[in-house]
Amino acid sequence: MSLRILRYIASYWSLSVQAANEQVKLGKLSASLVKRLDLSSPEKWAAMLQGVSDVASLPDPTGKVTYAIKLDDNLELYRVTCPIGVLLVIFEARPEVVVNIASLAIKSGTSPIPTRALILTWFGPTEGNVAILKGGKESTQTAILLGQCIRLALSQTSLHEDYIQLVHTREDISALLDQDKYIDLVIPRGSNALVSHIQHSTHIPVMGHADGLCTVYLDDSADAAKGKRVVVDSKINYPAACNSAEILVVHDAVINTIWPEVAVALLDAGVELRCNQVSITTIPPHPQKGHLVKPATPEDYKTEFLALTMAVTTVSSFEEAIVFINEHSSHHTDSIVTETTANASRFCRAVDSAGTFVNASTRFADGLRYGFGTEVGISTGRTHARGPVGLEGLVIYKYMLRSLEGGGHIVGEFGAGEGKKRYKHEGINVEVVPF
Amino acid sequence: MSLRILRYIASYWSLSVQAANEQVKLGKLSASLVKRLDLSSPEKWAAMLQGVSDVASLPDPTGKVTYAIKLDDNLELYRVTCPIGVLLVIFEARPEVVVNIASLAIKSGTSPIPTRALILTWFGPTEGNVAILKGGKESTQTAILLGQCIRLALSQTSLHEDYIQLVHTREDISALLDQDKYIDLVIPRGSNALVSHIQHSTHIPVMGHADGLCTVYLDDSADAAKGKRVVVDSKINYPAACNSAEILVVHDAVINTIWPEVAVALLDAGVELRCNQVSITTIPPHPQKGHLVKPATPEDYKTEFLALTMAVTTVSSFEEAIVFINEHSSHHTDSIVTETTANASRFCRAVDSAGTFVNASTRFADGLRYGFGTEVGISTGRTHARGPVGLEGLVIYKYMLRSLEGGGHIVGEFGAGEGKKRYKHEGINVEVVPF
Repeated sequence: MSLRILRYIASYWSLSVQAANEQVKLGKLSASLVKRLDLSSPEKWAAMLQGVSDVASLPDPTGKVTYAIKLDDNLELYRVTCPIGVLLVIFEARPEVVVNIASLAIKSGTSPIPTRALILTWFGPTEGNVAILKGGKESTQTAILLGQCIRLALSQTSLHEDYIQLVHTREDISALLDQDKYIDLVIPRGSNALVSHIQHSTHIPVMGHADGLCTVYLDDSADAAKGKRVVVDSKINYPAACNSAEILVVHDAVINTIWPEVAVALLDAGVELRCNQVSITTIPPHPQKGHLVKPATPEDYKTEFLALTMAVTTVSSFEEAIVFINEHSSHHTDSIVTETTANASRFCRAVDSAGTFVNASTRFADGLRYGFGTEVGISTGRTHARGPVGLEGLVIYKYMLRSLEGGGHIVGEFGAGEGKKRYKHEGINVEVVPF
Repeated sequence: MSLRILRYIASYWSLSVQAANEQVKLGKLSASLVKRLDLSSPEKWAAMLQGVSDVASLPDPTGKVTYAIKLDDNLELYRVTCPIGVLLVIFEARPEVVVNIASLAIKSGTSPIPTRALILTWFGPTEGNVAILKGGKESTQTAILLGQCIRLALSQTSLHEDYIQLVHTREDISALLDQDKYIDLVIPRGSNALVSHIQHSTHIPVMGHADGLCTVYLDDSADAAKGKRVVVDSKINYPAACNSAEILVVHDAVINTIWPEVAVALLDAGVELRCNQVSITTIPPHPQKGHLVKPATPEDYKTEFLALTMAVTTVSSFEEAIVFINEHSSHHTDSIVTETTANASRFCRAVDSAGTFVNASTRFADGLRYGFGTEVGISTGRTHARGPVGLEGLVIYKYMLRSLEGGGHIVGEFGAGEGKKRYKHEGINVEVVPF
């Protein structure tokens, strides 16, 4: 994709943002929404373009042999990674998602030379990842411009421009969600309401997460300094993100020692604390922020605040903490603060989440930070892909079997009886299919 | 699982089969159904038990590190395979599926020592693969006995007997298909009607295949002997199996040379041929089986015969063959008979199926033959698992992140600005998590 074209197109939507700002003045749009829509800040723009270059420089995820075995003399089986097919991506305001997803879809849809040649001969969704994109209505103009730009760039390559397509209305989406014969994966990115709605409106596989209810657990062996750093960063680094912590679980043993320090640090940072009976009593008086300490309701432990608010509870044992987290976490990312290796190990295995962390902020749960270049989204599902999903989440595999010599291989010659052949099942060590 | 217990239980259901045979005499049950129900033939029984031993001897699919990277000094990320969670397996008559699936679920649900210990402490579906099984109504008694046997065996191990549970009614299944919060994967095994019904009745991910419409393509460079062997074996080796070929695609160039030989071989084997206009004219007169040659209807190219019947069509080019196969195949397994390496290579990449074979019978598409020990089923889906699915299809992964030294790692210290840390993203070479 040509960066020059992208920059050129940018001039158009700065006009859209000007128009949006007029709406803000009239009280018809929120300033925070416009901030999410606006790509014209140099940092956001540069980050978006850098993401494209990063994805471009990643190794091709397709055409890799992940299993190879000799079934018989001259009969070789290869499992080879290949594109999934047709992706339907539905997202809310942030228009840069068009560029992120398009980069990933194109990168994961280009295959080794023989297939690339075929794409031109028999173009169809099956030979690459095709992405159908639908953005939020507030960013329609931006999404159209970005989409046109990407299609223009594609038309100058050996790939068909229809690899990236945009749709614009809710009706389009309803119709597409019924097309389980033609669409292979739906990726919703946005609010809980959007994702839940999509998950319950289609029989096509859906990859994503509705909730980001992450927890941090202060173990009885927690180090105070680590506790403060990890809890505060998990909460305040970017409260609107799905990987921010919403719940803090404190072991009773540190309720008079580490918890008061952590509580003060959170209050200093302006975090409202919704506390259970035990934890509320040991918070020292805070001259400026005392009003931010409130008793928790049961609902607080089920709420994704996405703001400077944190629900706090206490447990009397490590085991109780695990049970609480498995019940309340949305299985996205949970972190333990501990100095006990055995507890670190058990926490990581027993907590049933996509990310289980030790002495580290939940905010690390992110494709860029994990080294994937950029991410398609974060999945709390338990099939296909889990956690931050990069290029690998957009590929699947197929099996290629080749009979090299003799009269063609047939199953009727194998079996347990006399005169029958046995399967050899000898591993083959190759990275690409040798034909 | 104790083989001795399984053998003991066998004595019970030979009685059920006797009762079923009485029903056959009365015309109330078909003999072929009873044959599928009956496990008492020594070969079937031995194969079932051998399957258990084979699965037991496979390497543990959980606890494997599939990605490991250093994000910063003393900050290590590991992606580790783990069980999916709760599986709902719905199958028709064949009762040995209880044993196959239970073996796979148990094998894929046992994790390294720390987790195995945890299973006893906080038993719940999240720490292993739990399988809920529902068999066809004709084999309910057998399934109950097999289930009891497996639970009895489990109760004598460190695993909880509830890892394997059986349900018996359609109402149970309807209720369970709504439980997307608690059930992670549905695996239907049976007729097109059963699988389609399940796929359209749940928002839980479904792994399986509705159709097994496999094709064989005779290329213009096909070898006659290979063509005969591959086509005949693909059709007659076990016509009721999903990996049997239903459609034969013949290149015009061999319509007078190889096709007549193949047609005679098929007729000799008792296969009814439903031919298009071109292919019907070049079949030589067959003294005994000429009546098996019939003109095809369009419906024949969409039908999974599961019997000694084959639809035959012709194409004028390799490209036309690919287009025809991609339109008519159910994306299960398709095979080319060719002596041209370039066509073999292009066929394997351009045909959009779980298995693409060269000079080999479609009947090789099977977990046992692929070296997986046994199989959960065969998937024509394009996410999670595709083709024959063995143990690997019952695992997913989670990310474990560990901060080793210093004050606990936080995201706020990383970034593009001055004084900020950069991610190191240096690969770590390990096979198991080192803590």
